Amino acid sequence: MKASDKGRAVVAHSGGPTPVINASLAGVIEEAAKHTEITSLYGAQFGISGVLNEDFIDLSRQPEEIINAVSRTTASALGSSRREIKKVDLDRVLDIFAAHGARYFFYTGGNGSMGTAHQIQTAAQARGDDLRVIGIPKTIDNDLLGTDHSPGYPSTARFFAHAVRDIGADNRSLPGQVEIIEILGRNTGWLAAATSLARTREDDAPHLIYFPEQRLSLDRLVMDVERVYRRLNRCVVAVCEGQLNEYGEPFGADTRTGSRGSLAMNLAHRLAMLIAESLKIRARSEKPGLLGRASSAYVSTVDWEEARMCGQAAIQAALRNESGKMVTIVRAQQEPYASTHDLIDLAKVAYLEKPFPTEWRNAEGNDVLPAFREYILPLAGPVPAGGRLESIRVSTSPR
Amino acid sequence: MKASDKGRAVVAHSGGPTPVINASLAGVIEEAAKHTEITSLYGAQFGISGVLNEDFIDLSRQPEEIINAVSRTTASALGSSRREIKKVDLDRVLDIFAAHGARYFFYTGGNGSMGTAHQIQTAAQARGDDLRVIGIPKTIDNDLLGTDHSPGYPSTARFFAHAVRDIGADNRSLPGQVEIIEILGRNTGWLAAATSLARTREDDAPHLIYFPEQRLSLDRLVMDVERVYRRLNRCVVAVCEGQLNEYGEPFGADTRTGSRGSLAMNLAHRLAMLIAESLKIRARSEKPGLLGRASSAYVSTVDWEEARMCGQAAIQAALRNESGKMVTIVRAQQEPYASTHDLIDLAKVAYLEKPFPTEWRNAEGNDVLPAFREYILPLAGPVPAGGRLESIRVSTSPR
Repeated sequence: MKASDKGRAVVAHSGGPTPVINASLAGVIEEAAKHTEITSLYGAQFGISGVLNEDFIDLSRQPEEIINAVSRTTASALGSSRREIKKVDLDRVLDIFAAHGARYFFYTGGNGSMGTAHQIQTAAQARGDDLRVIGIPKTIDNDLLGTDHSPGYPSTARFFAHAVRDIGADNRSLPGQVEIIEILGRNTGWLAAATSLARTREDDAPHLIYFPEQRLSLDRLVMDVERVYRRLNRCVVAVCEGQLNEYGEPFGADTRTGSRGSLAMNLAHRLAMLIAESLKIRARSEKPGLLGRASSAYVSTVDWEEARMCGQAAIQAALRNESGKMVTIVRAQQEPYASTHDLIDLAKVAYLEKPFPTEWRNAEGNDVLPAFREYILPLAGPVPAGGRLESIRVSTSPR
Repeated sequence: MKASDKGRAVVAHSGGPTPVINASLAGVIEEAAKHTEITSLYGAQFGISGVLNEDFIDLSRQPEEIINAVSRTTASALGSSRREIKKVDLDRVLDIFAAHGARYFFYTGGNGSMGTAHQIQTAAQARGDDLRVIGIPKTIDNDLLGTDHSPGYPSTARFFAHAVRDIGADNRSLPGQVEIIEILGRNTGWLAAATSLARTREDDAPHLIYFPEQRLSLDRLVMDVERVYRRLNRCVVAVCEGQLNEYGEPFGADTRTGSRGSLAMNLAHRLAMLIAESLKIRARSEKPGLLGRASSAYVSTVDWEEARMCGQAAIQAALRNESGKMVTIVRAQQEPYASTHDLIDLAKVAYLEKPFPTEWRNAEGNDVLPAFREYILPLAGPVPAGGRLESIRVSTSPR
């Protein structure tokens, strides 16, 4: 060990929380504690803002039971931020790291955050600062390149698969209605696709799954829903919050923008209204929304363990003198499922998006193909079917 | 046992399903099997429609493992219906019962359904038919009179308390935003009130709870939200889907009506838009909707056991020659919680609604009072707090 290896480490979270981002944090804390090179571990509160404001808490002195409890808690225990770093902030970030003797920076986030990490690493190199920057993958959207999947996706997929199973059972028991379920995912259909895990019988929900990678006309949607509804007298549709129509526009969504320019999404409700008007049938919508990424009841065991592993692997990589890399998950074995980890250059994942593969969508663009099931099943785990009564008919009317 | 006691029994479900309506069904099936007076048990599929269409399945011949699996499955395994019975249907219902040798009718539902059961019982009595009619309580809204609470409410309360805890953690980790969570409950605030179980610390969500029993002006809402937001830089609001403004009107909700006259509710989204416009801050909404009554992960043990007990008690009551009654739940002991059951005349609960008590709301009408906690805690069970890091500050900047 060179003397220069010794130094502080800083970890921060970026973007929307996931059900297992705290498992990655616990992995970082636990692994950092094992290595004397890391003299102490700071957690930046509320993402890069916490770095810029020097709003740090000491993670090296947290009691073990707190770490354990936090690792099992959804949302970000450190606090996160959507703040994007500006070029002018880079020097300030590096000055703060230098002032605190920080030689290691771990940034947990999606493709935008990996872009930020890459900028910090490049700026440090240009200045000749000995700062090692490692990205820890995190996104419920599963749109990070270079990794089999991203921590957070399996648990959120598991949530939505159960949600569709349960709402599907409700729809079956009180039919004569169309249900539109709004699934998280602005640009990619990974989470919508995962609702297919809810199906065990031919008539189970979801009956239609749409992908934001492919535009969808209202006519097509109405035609699809009508076909299912005529057959089953009910219909459950999984649609991504970011689904656009054939002109690349929202479906007449509420286009008033919030004060910070965020489009108010109201997709499922609008689609339900449009279907009710077109087909003259009952239609309603559900929007579990952030519950999908915050729900503690559906954390996938595989996801939790891999998220923790990614945190540990980030520390190990930095201590091997790696920098400018993101930890990736490698599917090592399909059955029984096993994974390991690797590294990829931040430049290869920054600001890039992995769409849901066309080869896993059917030709009509309204369902997944069976090959996707092999991918998702070991990650999200099986979704048990509920009990159904046997259709033991009584003898026909005695009259 | 008189010869005339022997006969078939019919059980049906009515209205929206609950997480434990199938536990009541299992209780009916199991108890019926113990008594030779009940020669066989028919399940009417899709509520009173199943009776009118003679769409029965044989529940006496279902394998035990099916009953067990069904009892643990949410939504209605028999199928339910919102169909209201007309006077002209009453004779046909009684004719069908007579033709099938049915002497016992068990109807599982809320206050409207108890009205139907009462009509059937009165008509049978007028004709001199020996039909015993027992109502089994079921409503997530908890608005049935004469019972401490109704099966389905504790589990749905448990769902929404966890939902608010989890979304509250998300809101805390990514602040600068107002979250409006739409809670089930058109006319009563029982479910909204239950979200108070999510709080363990002073700054925990929900920060505001509104009750549809009390009208709410937009000015008041905005003022309340602004106060919380200024203090915490975040705010989580629990509001019932049926909340009306000070004029008794929806908050500019989408008033296009569905084909069957149902108002399309879109409350939380509208409130989020109105708050964002008024306060120039980010606001969004979540609408778990039917997931609240269909979610299997949050079934309360007490609820499940009491629902089953209500099914068993209905059979026992009918065999004691009771008729025209609904089973009620009686809180026998507060700590440790224990309950028993009793009966109430159908006429005393039919079409009547139990509002959330004024003495459990605060004067401002935006929160519950502590006494409510004693009522709800043993029913829904505790909502464990998540882990939080200790705020161990690092030494101030070394520069």
